[in-house]
Amino acid sequence: MSELRQDPTTREWVIIAPERAKRPQQMSKKKRVDKLPNWDADCPFCPGNENQTPAEVLRLPLSGQDWQVRVVPNRFAALTSNGDIIHREDGRFFHKIDGTGAHEVIIGTPSHNTPTALMSYEQVQKVLIAYQERYNALKKNRHIKFITIFKNHGQASGTSLIHPHSQLVATPVLAPYYRRRLGVAVDYFADIGSCLYCDLLAEELDKGERIVAQTREFVILHPYASRAPWETWIIPKRHCASFGLFPYEHLAELARVLKDTLLCLYRGLDNPAFNYVVNTAITEDENNPYYHWHIRIVPRISLIAGFEMGSGIYISTALPEKTASQMKQVAYSLPGDECLTLKQEA
Amino acid sequence: MSELRQDPTTREWVIIAPERAKRPQQMSKKKRVDKLPNWDADCPFCPGNENQTPAEVLRLPLSGQDWQVRVVPNRFAALTSNGDIIHREDGRFFHKIDGTGAHEVIIGTPSHNTPTALMSYEQVQKVLIAYQERYNALKKNRHIKFITIFKNHGQASGTSLIHPHSQLVATPVLAPYYRRRLGVAVDYFADIGSCLYCDLLAEELDKGERIVAQTREFVILHPYASRAPWETWIIPKRHCASFGLFPYEHLAELARVLKDTLLCLYRGLDNPAFNYVVNTAITEDENNPYYHWHIRIVPRISLIAGFEMGSGIYISTALPEKTASQMKQVAYSLPGDECLTLKQEA
Repeated sequence: MSELRQDPTTREWVIIAPERAKRPQQMSKKKRVDKLPNWDADCPFCPGNENQTPAEVLRLPLSGQDWQVRVVPNRFAALTSNGDIIHREDGRFFHKIDGTGAHEVIIGTPSHNTPTALMSYEQVQKVLIAYQERYNALKKNRHIKFITIFKNHGQASGTSLIHPHSQLVATPVLAPYYRRRLGVAVDYFADIGSCLYCDLLAEELDKGERIVAQTREFVILHPYASRAPWETWIIPKRHCASFGLFPYEHLAELARVLKDTLLCLYRGLDNPAFNYVVNTAITEDENNPYYHWHIRIVPRISLIAGFEMGSGIYISTALPEKTASQMKQVAYSLPGDECLTLKQEA
Repeated sequence: MSELRQDPTTREWVIIAPERAKRPQQMSKKKRVDKLPNWDADCPFCPGNENQTPAEVLRLPLSGQDWQVRVVPNRFAALTSNGDIIHREDGRFFHKIDGTGAHEVIIGTPSHNTPTALMSYEQVQKVLIAYQERYNALKKNRHIKFITIFKNHGQASGTSLIHPHSQLVATPVLAPYYRRRLGVAVDYFADIGSCLYCDLLAEELDKGERIVAQTREFVILHPYASRAPWETWIIPKRHCASFGLFPYEHLAELARVLKDTLLCLYRGLDNPAFNYVVNTAITEDENNPYYHWHIRIVPRISLIAGFEMGSGIYISTALPEKTASQMKQVAYSLPGDECLTLKQEA
């Protein structure tokens, strides 16, 4: 029998209906991607084609000839930075703002065919350093209200380019969708006097059934109201509202946790499409006691369809208690040096 | 330059960035579906295979040997009806309800290969009659809070079966996502004393630039804050909160408008994947003065990716003023008897 579960951090509902995993699929399944080359002459993100992107805003390492991570403005930017925010009202109903903000691409590796799951820890750490650098540079712009850092991997994730990359979009508005998520944490703090995520984490660790692993600084878990099978959250143990303020010295550990989590998905689900998003406080509220940054990884095993679009309710086909245990099994089944952090219990 | 536009009915934002239409696509494009047969021996929705579905809850016509529309419980139901709603709390954070509700499939035609766009008006009318019958039957269940009727067409829409069908999901909860949408209309009514949608419709008709067509009872328009190119709304002119209470005698006109709208998308965008959702008031609030049922059709030209999932902000690549005018041009370019309703201006 299925269950309706409420996400304690958003108040949104999901339906968990394991029976639906058995339904037939007439639509053609994703084909295995052909083995990709390490370098593609036509790829704007491959070394040698740097002139096909706008000028870099960041390159790592900072000096030396060869880059390992590049950050460039998106050539087809949804938003660009050009001066003031201009609100325009057209009658009572129509309100718009010129497209001020930023849209950047973090090119995560020179290698065309190396997804995050297969990168070195050092490489993933450089990507995270680039995220934080750009986050902290952009938040100084007083027009920027909110910064979303995310990754789309694989065709079903909505990406248009193969070369491993992430994106950052800085907007002059906060969507009601996200404001509600912050609001749940604000209300909790107002009612209870502590951080929702800190308390939730304590309860999850106490129960244990949805915990995949924990390291010194992070917990990896499958959330109570997972929107998709194997949805995975990476949450820092210590309270910290904003990803921008997360201690730099812990990015190396985050890199190990993120890479190992993605590798476990890669091995366990055969390189699934996924999205991940860094959830963080709004830029002007970075030091608040109620929000708690974290990463949500959602495998794109089924597409978002009319029901989800219409109702805001997701349907998943697996219980997170079960998938958390499966994910642990996958980790322990891998050779000793793979997914080491997911074999940790503290 | 791009624009951020706010949807006056949800307060959510979209980014309209026409430049992004030019970005390269390395992912393989949808392949043309091979010409489908009119009947498929393996299809559970084709005539002769009625025993592969659970027992019918509705068949049209009501008498006679052959059916034209069948409604059956979804064999892989997300929710099923079985008695009382049982809320279960597991500590402070984890709240669930047994999966009570309904999940039905409306098989829209005996013909395996006839999408709504190519059906007769009479056939589409039968589908709409089935929607309304089932809506009104299910709303009598006091556990049902909200009913979503929707259609997924084409692979990118998230459908798993080819045979033309729609679905109905009745839930014992209303998601905060949808509650906010109702809340915008409630607030508007509290402030202004009239229906948001009635007033918005008057303003859209006055401006005219996003109107595709209008008939005696309906307006077809591209919304100000379109989430995707060619997003199309069908809105009844006269105030009516619930689809369940929409006058039966106008379903024939709705069938013409819906079929012609989908045919125009089919011709104009080469049979795109799309979702449509019937947006309606909650069942216990059907006679309220603030909500106004309507249909939202969203072509799935690009996939929902990490940014949309993370921020709640959609990015579209076309201005609705432009696509409304293109859609009109497509309608007028078709032979005289095709898309007749979209050639009407009043």
